[in-house]
Amino acid sequence: MESNNLLNSVVNEIIDQLKLNTINESLLDSSIYSINAGGKRFRPLLLLQTLETLGTDINLGIIPAASLEMIHTYSLIHDDLPAMDDDQLRRGKPTNHVVFGEATAILAGDNLLTESFNLLTKANLTATQIVELVQLYSKNAGQLGMISGQMLDIEATNKDLTIEELEEIHRNKTGELIVAAIEAATIIANSEAHIKKLLKIFGEKLGLLFQITDDILDVIGTTEALGKTVGSDEKNKKNTYVSLLGLDGAKEVKNNLRSEMFDILNELENDINISILEELVESIVNREK
Amino acid sequence: MESNNLLNSVVNEIIDQLKLNTINESLLDSSIYSINAGGKRFRPLLLLQTLETLGTDINLGIIPAASLEMIHTYSLIHDDLPAMDDDQLRRGKPTNHVVFGEATAILAGDNLLTESFNLLTKANLTATQIVELVQLYSKNAGQLGMISGQMLDIEATNKDLTIEELEEIHRNKTGELIVAAIEAATIIANSEAHIKKLLKIFGEKLGLLFQITDDILDVIGTTEALGKTVGSDEKNKKNTYVSLLGLDGAKEVKNNLRSEMFDILNELENDINISILEELVESIVNREK
Repeated sequence: MESNNLLNSVVNEIIDQLKLNTINESLLDSSIYSINAGGKRFRPLLLLQTLETLGTDINLGIIPAASLEMIHTYSLIHDDLPAMDDDQLRRGKPTNHVVFGEATAILAGDNLLTESFNLLTKANLTATQIVELVQLYSKNAGQLGMISGQMLDIEATNKDLTIEELEEIHRNKTGELIVAAIEAATIIANSEAHIKKLLKIFGEKLGLLFQITDDILDVIGTTEALGKTVGSDEKNKKNTYVSLLGLDGAKEVKNNLRSEMFDILNELENDINISILEELVESIVNREK
Repeated sequence: MESNNLLNSVVNEIIDQLKLNTINESLLDSSIYSINAGGKRFRPLLLLQTLETLGTDINLGIIPAASLEMIHTYSLIHDDLPAMDDDQLRRGKPTNHVVFGEATAILAGDNLLTESFNLLTKANLTATQIVELVQLYSKNAGQLGMISGQMLDIEATNKDLTIEELEEIHRNKTGELIVAAIEAATIIANSEAHIKKLLKIFGEKLGLLFQITDDILDVIGTTEALGKTVGSDEKNKKNTYVSLLGLDGAKEVKNNLRSEMFDILNELENDINISILEELVESIVNREK
């Protein structure tokens, strides 16, 4: 899979959707600014890699991947707002509201969320598949997922959490969209029920692995490699896996997750091409930034 | 049509959707607060009345009407935010952010928008119809409609507008969701192309009629009947049809719109039961609050 080319196609789909007969320049500039601010594009990449794993034409996933990235980006814009986390920088660039003002940032977020569903309806899939994708994205991004995660996160500010409470926040705030990427691929591929079920569990563990790796890197990574200030979690008294379990404890949970994910993939080795997802797990386990 | 019972069903669909396995109480309370804050329920009612006009089972429209009301309500919550219009009161009650705080209000708005699409997928319609409705709502509520209207409105603050600029704001900010109510009904009813086309134009005029009547009532209505301070537009130096055209000019535009709308309905009298929409026009023309 030529990931860079594919991710360019994903981003171009988003830009095309946003530029389509737009009425207001500020809204357009603000929406595109945050899309172009980049990041790892982890969710669209995961969707496409899962499609490849399932032996399905990756091109069918471009629009659904673009739609998911729009939802992710809207959530970052709103999370950064002064009333929320009040962040001035994201990925080394000024946040949306710092550049465009709060009103425009709120509307750009609303816009990306709304247009994500519009774009999704244009996917080259059956109407039934599109309805399933709308249902999946709105469920996992809604009050049973991402939005509740953000609420729980806000309510947890300056409180000491248990490890279960911390996991509930992460499972909702970041995990549900990661699961959505994987489930979307199984919808596009018309996968059998047992494959869907196992890959969903795989996705839930992937979300936690992703977060715990972040928390560990915040402590042991180098500022240069990460592009952000190392130790910021501790400075901000943020509850993390490391603050709750210690560095060794967090690493142990990470290793256990890795083993469990490989066990799931082994169960699927007769059905799908698991090597792509194996590599994905290892790349997260070993990442240094 | 028993409008009160039907609107109760619409509101109950929304409440059921919001209460479904919710994770976070504050988010739920905040979302339900604004739904229960009421208002005229003009959009859901219009959708259901248009369905009746088209001779289609009204029950098929309950969920699409509920979804549309959720989108309308989210837009009010976000419009009232301090960074936007900074309104403390809406329909005589404290606005969402005044009661629940800004962060929760932003998330409640996000939640209602996201869950509106989730609810829509549950409508008792074909997958193709549901995809068409998702496309319609996301288009009319997005950057080609409502969100651009709000951006234009914010940018127009303290500026003198032309009547064309004023109309562009209203057409987008309030008109597009009113058109969506009518178009949704034609999708649910599988109406023929010429009916769809004429009713869409009717809807565009209805949106303007609705707004111009509001502007006129702000000047001539009584405080008691309206439940808000009369003359507030003038006090806030807001651009309105009355401020731009004078009271007589605004009334003339209103009467012209009424005639044009009746002409459209007359063109349709062999196809559909136009009396319901005729009554609707007259009720807006004659409304005193």
